[in-house]
Amino acid sequence: MNVLRTRMAILVAGTLLSGAAGAQGAVQWQSLPSAAPAPADNPTTQAKVRLGKMLFFDPRFSSTGTVSCFSCHNVMEGGDDHRPVSIGVEAQRGGRNAPTVFNAAFLSVQFWDGRAATLEDQAKGPPVNPIEMGMKGLTEVIYRIQRIPGYRPYFEQAFGSGDVVTMDNAAKAIAAYERTLITPGSAYDRYVEGDHTALTAQQVRGMSTFAAVGCASCHQGPNLSGPALPTSQGFFMKFPVYPQSPYVAKYDLMKDSGRYEATHNPADRNLWRVPGLRNLAYTAPYMHNGSVKSLPEAVRVMASAQLNRTLTAQQVGDITAFLQSLTGPFPKQTMPRLPPTPGNLLAR
Amino acid sequence: MNVLRTRMAILVAGTLLSGAAGAQGAVQWQSLPSAAPAPADNPTTQAKVRLGKMLFFDPRFSSTGTVSCFSCHNVMEGGDDHRPVSIGVEAQRGGRNAPTVFNAAFLSVQFWDGRAATLEDQAKGPPVNPIEMGMKGLTEVIYRIQRIPGYRPYFEQAFGSGDVVTMDNAAKAIAAYERTLITPGSAYDRYVEGDHTALTAQQVRGMSTFAAVGCASCHQGPNLSGPALPTSQGFFMKFPVYPQSPYVAKYDLMKDSGRYEATHNPADRNLWRVPGLRNLAYTAPYMHNGSVKSLPEAVRVMASAQLNRTLTAQQVGDITAFLQSLTGPFPKQTMPRLPPTPGNLLAR
Repeated sequence: MNVLRTRMAILVAGTLLSGAAGAQGAVQWQSLPSAAPAPADNPTTQAKVRLGKMLFFDPRFSSTGTVSCFSCHNVMEGGDDHRPVSIGVEAQRGGRNAPTVFNAAFLSVQFWDGRAATLEDQAKGPPVNPIEMGMKGLTEVIYRIQRIPGYRPYFEQAFGSGDVVTMDNAAKAIAAYERTLITPGSAYDRYVEGDHTALTAQQVRGMSTFAAVGCASCHQGPNLSGPALPTSQGFFMKFPVYPQSPYVAKYDLMKDSGRYEATHNPADRNLWRVPGLRNLAYTAPYMHNGSVKSLPEAVRVMASAQLNRTLTAQQVGDITAFLQSLTGPFPKQTMPRLPPTPGNLLAR
Repeated sequence: MNVLRTRMAILVAGTLLSGAAGAQGAVQWQSLPSAAPAPADNPTTQAKVRLGKMLFFDPRFSSTGTVSCFSCHNVMEGGDDHRPVSIGVEAQRGGRNAPTVFNAAFLSVQFWDGRAATLEDQAKGPPVNPIEMGMKGLTEVIYRIQRIPGYRPYFEQAFGSGDVVTMDNAAKAIAAYERTLITPGSAYDRYVEGDHTALTAQQVRGMSTFAAVGCASCHQGPNLSGPALPTSQGFFMKFPVYPQSPYVAKYDLMKDSGRYEATHNPADRNLWRVPGLRNLAYTAPYMHNGSVKSLPEAVRVMASAQLNRTLTAQQVGDITAFLQSLTGPFPKQTMPRLPPTPGNLLAR
């Protein structure tokens, strides 16, 4: 327990140091860049994005042929699945609320518990998760893709000739596509970039309150998910910080021990990667367990469980209005065209 | 049984009269029109198509929020779901292979058994089918849509002001969108319209064989689903005509009694709406039960079970090549943008 407490103290101190002195002026508000960074070994190219979009929408490398990345990350909506927890193959329920794929490219680690360092790593998780896409292993996944002959030309265009229909390349293509799923240019971004007409008076007030009460201690940076950190270095926070908050029991917020489930390190118990706040109006319900149904209630819960504060109705309304300024615009997209299916592709 | 036999005789005679004298020349080959007909009470408009596309892709009016029209009619692929039989909510399996939505606008009745007269009627079926989208009734469906406030402006643009967020209007919009899901301009269409370079020599040979052996008795007309008939008047055929074909047992083709399941009229036992043949290369596996995995095998099965013929390998290859000339091009589409979800939308 000493280890845990020490680590928490460092994390909290660290975030306090990084800007949330309590007033809007002390926070470094940052707009979202117009392009997402890509790793040196996977530069974003048009050919990769095209292939990655096809794979993202393709349900054929799930065990039943019914679940794709798109199933739980609906990019026609909020990039999530609007459910408390997701449903994978054979109607199995997952344990956590699907995080939005929009702006995941700006996170330094992936998944609620940060167990994947990169989008490329993340893309290899759900296909082989028994309750998500249910494939027996990555070998079975890429074998499924290899048996759809129409995919080969797209892999060759993206990665050259030879043995290119590989799981690593599939994951690289999906990650490249996901790096296009970003939403700069929201009212908030325009305001931060100098257009003082972009926000309403209530939203500006909410922005000040958001900083003043302490939300921006964690929710800072261009994605409001913490300071920009190198890839694989996560920005984690304990949640709840105040377990005695009545909301903790009401919404069962401590049952899932977060990062501990991935690391089994006692210091990681109830640690979570700080989620971004963009497009929140599209991603209800909220929290890691999808238990909180409305945005105003989510604001009340976070204030209570993280800051030990009870906000006034006006504060809640103002912060909610501010959070709504973080929406879109979403990238316009053409539908991909998937290659035809051999009739014997799906054994189950 | 007399009733059954008489009706069959009329059907077979009717189709024999309508063109399949045995030679290519006797068949009236028809290309697909560049637009689909719309009923007088639901003219196709851009506003309806836009709304209909949103509803088509929206999984939120299924019981779990996970199944949409798109789930089983993947318009990024062949307009079907590449599975033997579909999977609906709670992992329930349907009994029949999902027909493609592409060119359904040219069918005079809908579903394998013709139980819906129009696309508008058809659209109201799957949402309330307990093993498809699983809603308790159409009232629950439209209530779900009404509770997504972002939909109202789209309904108003399509249908005017007032009480327009109705199930009838939702179905009209979906049907209007589906009337854009057509694939004229295939190699076959170009050939029929006079471009004699559009087909390969093998495809031309296959076209002749297709007519000569009798396939075109049923598979005629612009969609190769039978002659153009008024809406609600289906073109049905008994399948199998030759139950002693070894393929009938092998693929269990008589277990489902087809139109009889909808009408309970003994004369309808093992009657099926003649399916179109366009884009077959994209819609494996085949038959009403999705039991036949490859196109050449489907050709062999049909020749045996319907025409009591055993084709040579060359005939099978030639007909298959001809059928492949019926593919696409598919309409290019932009992705719809769905309105955000209230966090309390999904109770289950």
